[in-house]
Amino acid sequence: MSDIAQYVHRHRSRFIDELSQFLRIPSISTDPEHRRDVLQCAGYVAGALRRLGMQRVEVFSTPGHPLVYGEWLEAPERPTALVYGHYDVQPADPLVLWDTPPFEPSVRDGQLYARGAADDKGQVFMHWKAIEALWQLHGRLPLNLKFIFEGEEEIGSRHFDPFLASHANLLAADVAIVSDTAMFARGYPSICYGLRGLAYFQVTVFGPSHDLHSGSFGGGIANPALVLAQLLASLKDEHNRIAIAGFYDDVVLPTAEERRQIASLPFAEEAAARELGVPALSGEEGYCFLEQVWLRPSVDVNGIWGGFTGPGSKTIIPSQATAKVSLRLVPNQDPNRIADRFEQHLQAACPQGARLQIERMEAARAVVVPRDNAFVRAAARAVAQGFGKEPVFIRSGGTIGAAASISARLGIPIVMFGIGLPDAQTHAPNEHLDLDNLFRGIVSVAHMWEELATIGKA
Amino acid sequence: MSDIAQYVHRHRSRFIDELSQFLRIPSISTDPEHRRDVLQCAGYVAGALRRLGMQRVEVFSTPGHPLVYGEWLEAPERPTALVYGHYDVQPADPLVLWDTPPFEPSVRDGQLYARGAADDKGQVFMHWKAIEALWQLHGRLPLNLKFIFEGEEEIGSRHFDPFLASHANLLAADVAIVSDTAMFARGYPSICYGLRGLAYFQVTVFGPSHDLHSGSFGGGIANPALVLAQLLASLKDEHNRIAIAGFYDDVVLPTAEERRQIASLPFAEEAAARELGVPALSGEEGYCFLEQVWLRPSVDVNGIWGGFTGPGSKTIIPSQATAKVSLRLVPNQDPNRIADRFEQHLQAACPQGARLQIERMEAARAVVVPRDNAFVRAAARAVAQGFGKEPVFIRSGGTIGAAASISARLGIPIVMFGIGLPDAQTHAPNEHLDLDNLFRGIVSVAHMWEELATIGKA
Repeated sequence: MSDIAQYVHRHRSRFIDELSQFLRIPSISTDPEHRRDVLQCAGYVAGALRRLGMQRVEVFSTPGHPLVYGEWLEAPERPTALVYGHYDVQPADPLVLWDTPPFEPSVRDGQLYARGAADDKGQVFMHWKAIEALWQLHGRLPLNLKFIFEGEEEIGSRHFDPFLASHANLLAADVAIVSDTAMFARGYPSICYGLRGLAYFQVTVFGPSHDLHSGSFGGGIANPALVLAQLLASLKDEHNRIAIAGFYDDVVLPTAEERRQIASLPFAEEAAARELGVPALSGEEGYCFLEQVWLRPSVDVNGIWGGFTGPGSKTIIPSQATAKVSLRLVPNQDPNRIADRFEQHLQAACPQGARLQIERMEAARAVVVPRDNAFVRAAARAVAQGFGKEPVFIRSGGTIGAAASISARLGIPIVMFGIGLPDAQTHAPNEHLDLDNLFRGIVSVAHMWEELATIGKA
Repeated sequence: MSDIAQYVHRHRSRFIDELSQFLRIPSISTDPEHRRDVLQCAGYVAGALRRLGMQRVEVFSTPGHPLVYGEWLEAPERPTALVYGHYDVQPADPLVLWDTPPFEPSVRDGQLYARGAADDKGQVFMHWKAIEALWQLHGRLPLNLKFIFEGEEEIGSRHFDPFLASHANLLAADVAIVSDTAMFARGYPSICYGLRGLAYFQVTVFGPSHDLHSGSFGGGIANPALVLAQLLASLKDEHNRIAIAGFYDDVVLPTAEERRQIASLPFAEEAAARELGVPALSGEEGYCFLEQVWLRPSVDVNGIWGGFTGPGSKTIIPSQATAKVSLRLVPNQDPNRIADRFEQHLQAACPQGARLQIERMEAARAVVVPRDNAFVRAAARAVAQGFGKEPVFIRSGGTIGAAASISARLGIPIVMFGIGLPDAQTHAPNEHLDLDNLFRGIVSVAHMWEELATIGKA
């Protein structure tokens, strides 16, 4: 057992107590009633960074919730790592479904239950304790560190990108570490090397100025809800490919090597379908499930509404109908060009008898880091030390806006290392963190600083 | 001026007072709080029939609101006419949009404003006053009469068809008169000779057992809202024809003569589009608007919902999505066979990765009465006398469940004669009835009894 592992083992019950303090602050970013809690949590994060010996700690206010920055830059010959995480959490409702209260952390069967335990306070805390161990054991840090912790990740990271744009020098680094992804499965320490991008829209079809009687007018005017259905259906072809002209032009195809590596991961499609409650998985022809959600772009209708939605029947032609539509993007799709194509496609498909309005909401590029990048390989060595097992390389179908911003604005590789399990119930009742993974994660990160320090500065 | 026209002219202010009494009863059938008002209104109708000299008047209770029946059968050599109308009304909200209170009738510019003025109390009242005029002027009625007035027309006539099935002898007649349709336009007295039928469904697509993260699963499982859109879109082809196999098999095509007659009616499509607030009318290729809504079947999405419908963005795959879908039918489409085809079509189109549930709600056959039917021609002569102008023959795109039941159960021709204008604001604030049309309608109906009496019994 390494000295770091021994240190973590010795202090584990104090670590649980300290993380529990952090978890008790209900920093729900979406809820205006918790605004003060979010602010208090930012202060807590700043205090933790100061106690860790950061030389400079600053709370940057934004039009929303603050960003907390900390730095230690006393290793001039060594590279600089930028650590990203977020201290805000999802709402906890429905409260009745929690076995123990969401903001009163509780340990059962080696799991720490609390809102934010996995997403993302536990993973932020993992970084703090790795620093503590290094100070205590070695009396120094092996490389320069910058921390940036966000309070708006759960509400779209709206102020992160502008902050990055105006503070590029402050955050300049050689490599970034983002701990906001999950492990592939229990017992599979994971390095995530790719995220999908996002383009999110609200699409409204307008018909008559008010609801009409479907007897008097049915068949004589365009029905906005049916037109909306036609437009949405036109986005996909019979092979489950996206039918927007030029949509795949810039898509980077997976290499045979990458497909082989993904195929080697243990994933049982039938069992997954059973667990999700669907008759079968279903996606683009020619790709397996993991390829579909990791490597291939997709389209989803996130919500739809219009007309009469009460019990019984009402015979109307609704005056309008609306859908929320999201596209997940992969390298090298540009969200703005894709949004242009999306709009052109729908406008061209909209019949004369209706009007179409498309609102662009969120947009983020996909992020992929080459698996043979020196920092990524160094991080993998560290994870192997922390977990006693080689990590698997995975991608995520999700989008982390901050990672996309870091990649685009700072142009540095990102190591994505997370310790939450896929069934950690993030965003759901009974969120929990496996404590064994937390302790191995702390050890991994401490080794990671040492491993990354061996890579030359950019 | 005929003696009947003179009688109506002489008594018109009393008629307005009496109709206003009827209109003051807020017989809103859909609202449980108005249940006693509906009951009181049924009693009012029964009292009116007794005062008109009906020999037998009966209030039949149903599991919902009562039916009121009245008969006068003292003309043994003459045919029997069955008169249908309804005494229930639509809700009056939003109240703030009424210029005068909905249940305090008020005359302005020759229009009587009140909820139910046109739909349908004014048209029921028209029949009563025609009887009164005939008694007063001639001391007798020219034919046998049966009245059946319903209290559930505005909530789907659920108990009318079962009542008809169990009281076919009671309601047996040679011809039915239904006054619940509108005039083609101001100055165009109208006989309606056709109604469309209806098949109404609720369609739900089920996917995963709970909402899923669209990043982690998007592209790998079927999205219920998108599948629903695909299913709805599959119901129509690019010519705006319904794409269900066999859907048109039993459709009776319009004759050249009927198309010529419809083309002769004054209808400005561009002006109609402007008035409705749509960029253009839009319907099945090869037919004009009036043909589309009168003669051709149609499909409409009456409502649709699923997933996230709040402000902002939420990246989920909804676990389910639902739509209300109605088909308007024409002769000789059978609603049950059409419903079978509809279900088969959607089930066949539903992808493996989702489950589909279809609930059948309402169903009614189309009704068409040959324009050369002797009763219809007799009625047209009467309307010409009442309005001093030949009536136009029109159809309606709507469905009157009671008319479909009468046609199917009793197998008799139906004369549909209504005096409401298309802009009478039925079902909307400021509903009103043109009093001139009411008075001409009373005269028309009195003449109608005389004209119908000349036709032999079946």
